[in-house]
Amino acid sequence: MINIKLTPRQEEIIRLVKENHPITSETLASNLGVTRAALRPDLAVLTMIGVLEARPKVGYIYSQKPSYSMIYDYIVDIKTKDIMSKPVVVSEETTVYDAIIHLFLNDVGTLFVENKGMLTGAISRKDFLKIAMGGTDIHKVPVGIIMTRMPNIIFVEKEDSAYLVAQKIIDHEIDSLPVVERIFEEGKEQLKIIGKVSKTNITKLFVKLGQSK
Amino acid sequence: MINIKLTPRQEEIIRLVKENHPITSETLASNLGVTRAALRPDLAVLTMIGVLEARPKVGYIYSQKPSYSMIYDYIVDIKTKDIMSKPVVVSEETTVYDAIIHLFLNDVGTLFVENKGMLTGAISRKDFLKIAMGGTDIHKVPVGIIMTRMPNIIFVEKEDSAYLVAQKIIDHEIDSLPVVERIFEEGKEQLKIIGKVSKTNITKLFVKLGQSK
Repeated sequence: MINIKLTPRQEEIIRLVKENHPITSETLASNLGVTRAALRPDLAVLTMIGVLEARPKVGYIYSQKPSYSMIYDYIVDIKTKDIMSKPVVVSEETTVYDAIIHLFLNDVGTLFVENKGMLTGAISRKDFLKIAMGGTDIHKVPVGIIMTRMPNIIFVEKEDSAYLVAQKIIDHEIDSLPVVERIFEEGKEQLKIIGKVSKTNITKLFVKLGQSK
Repeated sequence: MINIKLTPRQEEIIRLVKENHPITSETLASNLGVTRAALRPDLAVLTMIGVLEARPKVGYIYSQKPSYSMIYDYIVDIKTKDIMSKPVVVSEETTVYDAIIHLFLNDVGTLFVENKGMLTGAISRKDFLKIAMGGTDIHKVPVGIIMTRMPNIIFVEKEDSAYLVAQKIIDHEIDSLPVVERIFEEGKEQLKIIGKVSKTNITKLFVKLGQSK
């Protein structure tokens, strides 16, 4: 982990710019009793990390804006496999009632459905609520009937960036995405579920970003 | 918005270090046909932004790690009021059935409950599902009976950082937090609900961080 440690002189430059901006490098140099050339590396650093802004013919301005591109670079480097958690999976024959019990016991918002080890569907808390209030006999109806079925399920793969996952969650208004491995069998592509990423995983990642001070 | 734009020479330094690290500043200077002194500002910048790491008596190493503290600084600067959305509110007398209809029509995961304009409770999709599958007559029971009631509701205020909100969401395993204003009336503190922040808002913020390239 790398922290930006400013030198005492750089701190002093920031203080001077904060109080007197816009301020030219000449004024800064004379205030600090050094030459402009001696100041150049410090000003380059402070401008590059975004604490100061250099305006041509005006001088230096205090900005304190972060470098967005560095945040971006950091975020796209985080992979789905780094943040995914264990999916809770049921079979298509599971009754809606039993599936809801699974949902509560595992404290998740979405169940995924498998058939012969391959992903065939997904059911969210919202889907369950719709059925439960509708007067259907949830002890008799299997989840295979009410689930969202492939190919209508948005999924991601383990090497996809966490950023892409978050984008898909927002764009498609989904709580939880399955992480799959593509398997070719009998000339057909099948999806094996190996994880899931939900808004909870993204929120946890956000908290982690903030903790890494 | 400030982007870090590296100079062609800095890009060249990164390439040289990547291919030959560890590499001393002497070797770098002779490779580039410049003096060590001329290289100093570039190396200072690249070390400070975390692309290179300087190891005493060893030389420069390619690192490409981000500056966590800058990400942290950026994140704590975002306020709850910058990311909150409109809360969906019902009264304590609303029946569970009507409340669920509200939940679906507004496409939210949590409803907040008010009495005389003040926050008194919250009900999540999970709470509704529990009731709906339990055989209760949801047309007769008012939400006031099943909701989580103050003071058991975790809340935030509009000047709190988005980071704090995310942390509370994770620590307390909650989907959505009310944003409140404290009001003193008849010697008692009351909470007026002015917004909400959910995992969706945090996920959207995360996507926005990545987009600001």
